[in-house]
Amino acid sequence: MHQANASMINPDVAAIPMSKREAIWKAMEGRNDLANLASGNPDMVMPEPVRKAMRKQVDEGYARYTDYYGFKELREGISGMLAQDWSLQANSEDAIIVTCGVQQGLYVVMRSIFKPGDEVIIPSPHYGTYYQNTLACGAKPVLVPLAESGNFVPDFERLAAAVSAKSRAIVFCNPNNPLGVVWSHQTLKSLAEFAQAHDLLVLVDEIYRDYTFNGEPLSIGSLPGMAQRTFTFGGFSKSHLMMGLRIGFVAGPPALMHTVKKLHYCVALCPSVISQAAAQAALACTDADLAPIRNHFAAKLDHLYRRIKALPSVSCVAPGGSFYVFPNFSRYDSDAMTFAIRLIEEAGVVTLPGTEFGKLGQGHLRLSVCATEAEVSEGIQRLETFIHKLHG
Amino acid sequence: MHQANASMINPDVAAIPMSKREAIWKAMEGRNDLANLASGNPDMVMPEPVRKAMRKQVDEGYARYTDYYGFKELREGISGMLAQDWSLQANSEDAIIVTCGVQQGLYVVMRSIFKPGDEVIIPSPHYGTYYQNTLACGAKPVLVPLAESGNFVPDFERLAAAVSAKSRAIVFCNPNNPLGVVWSHQTLKSLAEFAQAHDLLVLVDEIYRDYTFNGEPLSIGSLPGMAQRTFTFGGFSKSHLMMGLRIGFVAGPPALMHTVKKLHYCVALCPSVISQAAAQAALACTDADLAPIRNHFAAKLDHLYRRIKALPSVSCVAPGGSFYVFPNFSRYDSDAMTFAIRLIEEAGVVTLPGTEFGKLGQGHLRLSVCATEAEVSEGIQRLETFIHKLHG
Repeated sequence: MHQANASMINPDVAAIPMSKREAIWKAMEGRNDLANLASGNPDMVMPEPVRKAMRKQVDEGYARYTDYYGFKELREGISGMLAQDWSLQANSEDAIIVTCGVQQGLYVVMRSIFKPGDEVIIPSPHYGTYYQNTLACGAKPVLVPLAESGNFVPDFERLAAAVSAKSRAIVFCNPNNPLGVVWSHQTLKSLAEFAQAHDLLVLVDEIYRDYTFNGEPLSIGSLPGMAQRTFTFGGFSKSHLMMGLRIGFVAGPPALMHTVKKLHYCVALCPSVISQAAAQAALACTDADLAPIRNHFAAKLDHLYRRIKALPSVSCVAPGGSFYVFPNFSRYDSDAMTFAIRLIEEAGVVTLPGTEFGKLGQGHLRLSVCATEAEVSEGIQRLETFIHKLHG
Repeated sequence: MHQANASMINPDVAAIPMSKREAIWKAMEGRNDLANLASGNPDMVMPEPVRKAMRKQVDEGYARYTDYYGFKELREGISGMLAQDWSLQANSEDAIIVTCGVQQGLYVVMRSIFKPGDEVIIPSPHYGTYYQNTLACGAKPVLVPLAESGNFVPDFERLAAAVSAKSRAIVFCNPNNPLGVVWSHQTLKSLAEFAQAHDLLVLVDEIYRDYTFNGEPLSIGSLPGMAQRTFTFGGFSKSHLMMGLRIGFVAGPPALMHTVKKLHYCVALCPSVISQAAAQAALACTDADLAPIRNHFAAKLDHLYRRIKALPSVSCVAPGGSFYVFPNFSRYDSDAMTFAIRLIEEAGVVTLPGTEFGKLGQGHLRLSVCATEAEVSEGIQRLETFIHKLHG
């Protein structure tokens, strides 16, 4: 057999650029003295009602295949939550599928609607798979810069300039990973008008919705005329600390969801039964279960922001939600990866280079508050010490 | 916005043909008096060691993201099992990924290696997603009939006639769903020679491997020269009754797995952490845990086969494994779907039409032994009564 070569693999899939985090992991190897401000893996346990539902599933002992698109009751529960809390009308039969996390939902939607040659507008810095999936579909990502000087709010002139006859969709998350910002209701209304003016689909990843700290969350799909052009992705990974259970959902226009469902079946068969049981319990959690989690992250993020903001020659846009800030350290090192590795080696603190979120993240680091309060505090202090030393 | 139309969706994904089982489900609606010989969902609980590991995971309470490709320890465990029990050499770092079931593994491999225009040889009747995924990749399925008169063993002249310059791979499962047969070691050796002679990749789905009742299982990837051209899919759904946990694996040539891993990340991020914990426990299960499960299904399948074989004007190839037989009822009705619906309505027994496994399944029904012993027995008796009445 000839050796594996380009002729043996799908070129679109081969073109997927992978994370360069291995350089970070390598620098971390054998070190147990590091403070981690890089993780997206919160260091907290799932709420007790979720764990109780999982125990019940294990005690019953069955692990059967379920409805391909998720339990009927779970889809109905999600539909009810979307109507009540998100102001989104999505029918549980036609408009919603339960997915193995937002990641799987994003893939099946993007691959179901994009064709080779289509262009996909991605405000950037961006979460990696928006870009990766676009390439995996043979479509073309068109990055539109979100300027730090504009608080990472989209510039509508730049967005309009990015539109061509091949533009099919705009993809973003709100609250934003990695930027930490939450776009205002006015910005979302302008985005909705922009999408309608240019006949674009909107794919909005709202996995951090419950971590909106600067006002009430608004789903762009709830705005007038947007239901038929918006795919809304959500899940329980962040809100209920169920990341590893891989369970989420997508709500979208039924005429397109019909095709998305076909690919979902081929990709997943069905979501995990125990994760679905956990998701049903998650829907039934009360504010008493969840507010302590939200408050915990809000306090840690506020603390992180205030301390980073005070560093000399470091700029940092105020976060409005999520677990992240995205400060600019370019006055200390023009290359984010180099600086992130120096921070591990010389300061004992782990961060992610902004370039993990596209080349427009150059000069920035993504800092997270997923570690324990003590570890986050230790990380901040080490960063302060290091920066003050550099600053001289 | 213009209404959803073909220009808005990916034509390859839109072309995925879905199961027509809804007609079956509709005929079943409101009936709680049916005996089910259709299900692929075994009516048994997971082994206790698996449930114990799941309880431990829930008690600890964390549900973190894991390594994208599965726990290192789990990949090492799978690698060890493949070496010891399957005679397959697959390195845990380069050659194995843990997937959200075989379904997800099949999709990511097929989409990573097939290109539009490629041809994929599928012995048929076949498990549905081999065909669906081929179309979803824009590739062309080439069905090669498995003749009942030849005990559903591949005819190598027909296989050779199906090969063209565009042929890339052959995809099959062994033991076979829906046919119930297990191909002999000699047949697998001939298939290996065929793949090498025509420079084809081999994708072999061994999800029913532990239900090989007619001798020792043989993995085609273990034959000389096959490691570099074989993707082997396995999992815990059938062997450990973990269907709903969606956890399995694929082992394949590292040079190609490098690309498969990229798509796996985009599709899954990582497999479920609790399902991985269950899979680790599954690897540690002993024969004392598993033999009763195997023996239970073997006894039910043997019973089903003997009774079906005795029906007048019904032919049935002897099963060698799996949960299925695939008898031919064409002397009673030329259309399998029509006959399956008659069986529900007039005999109170649920089966799957052979056409669910491609048009070459016409005239056949797939009967399974996933229901309880009592329900399987009741189903057989109803079928006998009905056939004897028809036969007059």
